[in-house]
Amino acid sequence: MTKMKVLGVAVALAVAGSAWAATVRDEPIKPIEAAQVSDAGKVELGKKLWFEPRLSMSGIISCNTCHNLSMGGTDNLKTSIGHGWKAGPVNSPTVFNSSLAIAQFWDGRAADLKEQAGGPIQADVEMNMPHTLAVGILQSIPGYVDEFKRVYGKDKIDIDMITDSIAEFEKTLVTPNSRFDKWLAGDDKALTGKELAGYTLFKDSGCVACHNGPAAGGTSFQRMGVVEPYKSSSPAEGRSAVTGVDADRFNFKVPTLRNVELTYPYFHDGEARTLEEAVDIMGRLQLGRTYSADEIGSIVAFLKTLTGELPQIAMPILPPSSNETPRPDPFK
Amino acid sequence: MTKMKVLGVAVALAVAGSAWAATVRDEPIKPIEAAQVSDAGKVELGKKLWFEPRLSMSGIISCNTCHNLSMGGTDNLKTSIGHGWKAGPVNSPTVFNSSLAIAQFWDGRAADLKEQAGGPIQADVEMNMPHTLAVGILQSIPGYVDEFKRVYGKDKIDIDMITDSIAEFEKTLVTPNSRFDKWLAGDDKALTGKELAGYTLFKDSGCVACHNGPAAGGTSFQRMGVVEPYKSSSPAEGRSAVTGVDADRFNFKVPTLRNVELTYPYFHDGEARTLEEAVDIMGRLQLGRTYSADEIGSIVAFLKTLTGELPQIAMPILPPSSNETPRPDPFK
Repeated sequence: MTKMKVLGVAVALAVAGSAWAATVRDEPIKPIEAAQVSDAGKVELGKKLWFEPRLSMSGIISCNTCHNLSMGGTDNLKTSIGHGWKAGPVNSPTVFNSSLAIAQFWDGRAADLKEQAGGPIQADVEMNMPHTLAVGILQSIPGYVDEFKRVYGKDKIDIDMITDSIAEFEKTLVTPNSRFDKWLAGDDKALTGKELAGYTLFKDSGCVACHNGPAAGGTSFQRMGVVEPYKSSSPAEGRSAVTGVDADRFNFKVPTLRNVELTYPYFHDGEARTLEEAVDIMGRLQLGRTYSADEIGSIVAFLKTLTGELPQIAMPILPPSSNETPRPDPFK
Repeated sequence: MTKMKVLGVAVALAVAGSAWAATVRDEPIKPIEAAQVSDAGKVELGKKLWFEPRLSMSGIISCNTCHNLSMGGTDNLKTSIGHGWKAGPVNSPTVFNSSLAIAQFWDGRAADLKEQAGGPIQADVEMNMPHTLAVGILQSIPGYVDEFKRVYGKDKIDIDMITDSIAEFEKTLVTPNSRFDKWLAGDDKALTGKELAGYTLFKDSGCVACHNGPAAGGTSFQRMGVVEPYKSSSPAEGRSAVTGVDADRFNFKVPTLRNVELTYPYFHDGEARTLEEAVDIMGRLQLGRTYSADEIGSIVAFLKTLTGELPQIAMPILPPSSNETPRPDPFK
């Protein structure tokens, strides 16, 4: 696991754009590109809101609570704990590289990050904050009024600006330059023999049918339990809750495998405790194949090469509430 | 409110150490000195532990939850919310400049930051984590084993190393170079006429008897409610819980006024919602003086000059758990 440095980004861009471009391997898993920031002010505002617990009714839950940027962009719990210590129905997916997915949430009910961002703010098992009150709180804080004005050119804050800026910040949360990406770019020494054997097995046994693209996932919805049914105590129905089509039951968005060594536990219900367990279950339930312990070991070794350079985040200093700012109410 | 920059620290040191030293005003409130880091590796380890939710039974509460470095080093709640959504008995004091206090906690039951750091980890209304399990968790994480070895030269982690490194990180959390400090250093233009009038009134009416020293507080224990009794629904008894002496009942450590505009709500029970309300109550209960609205306004204006340069914190990347790491249990 490495930290992204400014120099590292520059190198990654150079690699993608010039000298090594001709030697890039054509594989089902594609490289992660470094983030391009077009509006730094909007990203900075979105970062503040990302860490803003006043967007929750309790005043202590922020986006970062369940998608912790210090912990692979997740909370490493089976399912998240939200307002009133309620447990959510599904495992918190990583925010890293989430901009690369076809849709947001496990069931894809949000088309993009902007649409997604409004959900957890108002969900009663997450931040439990009505959008109107969230807007009212930010509007009562002079530091935010100034900053929204600078970014959006308007005196009145609205929920669209809030979710738009959070989404712009999230788009910067990509993790390029993993060892696998270096190998993709032509560096033969970036992977060990065991890791490469793991990747070959991962491809040959069919994992790439779903785990493909730059995020090694996030490109399709697939049934959890193809060859054998998956037994879960989770109430989550998957894609059918969005489409209303019974055939979509237990179809979930294929999760990214980028940084998967950091995003334990696994699956929509968080029931797979380790990467070894997750690979074993996926082999049996999705591919009808029982991997040996050695095979699992080599696939896991490959998966750990997908850990990229995590963005280094300077914590924002949040503007103080004014006397008029509605105060948090943890017990509401 | 400003962010501390590396350059800013250098300037603050230069100011304190040379040219302006001869012009420093001799006042009951003393300047905040920039932090001196003697062991950067220990501070970095302590920073990781500061943000480490795996030190809590639930896996979601870290030191930073209640002493949020983005929010004046507090949670801005009346009293904090901890494990199982339980409310604590007292208001979370700011971590900023806490190294300057004579003792830790509102009742001073910990002699120093190291002794303090172990308390919230195991308190059932805070992180609810037995120290033995906290040590076991870190010992199961290879990244931590390596880092403790580098810092302490030992293979076996113990709770003393955990609290020692957290305390070393906390000692860096000072906020020098407020406008008041610039004025103390001889810059006549650093305060407005109203702010200076507020400070004069603050001194002349006796506030400095308790709010003195570099932290403008933290130098003594004082009774809450001297002239008039203070009515609180909080069960906190104050200093008598430590000394067993009935005369110490409702004696609390005088809180720092540094960054007080960021550390609302006020008092050990968090019952004063605004700075104006806090000044009014302090005047009546501690000094037998009813300040006019104008007087309160000028004292509040002065108090806001105590907001210093907040440390700019790069979020740590926490090492992942191993398969052997005990997993969090929010409902234990």
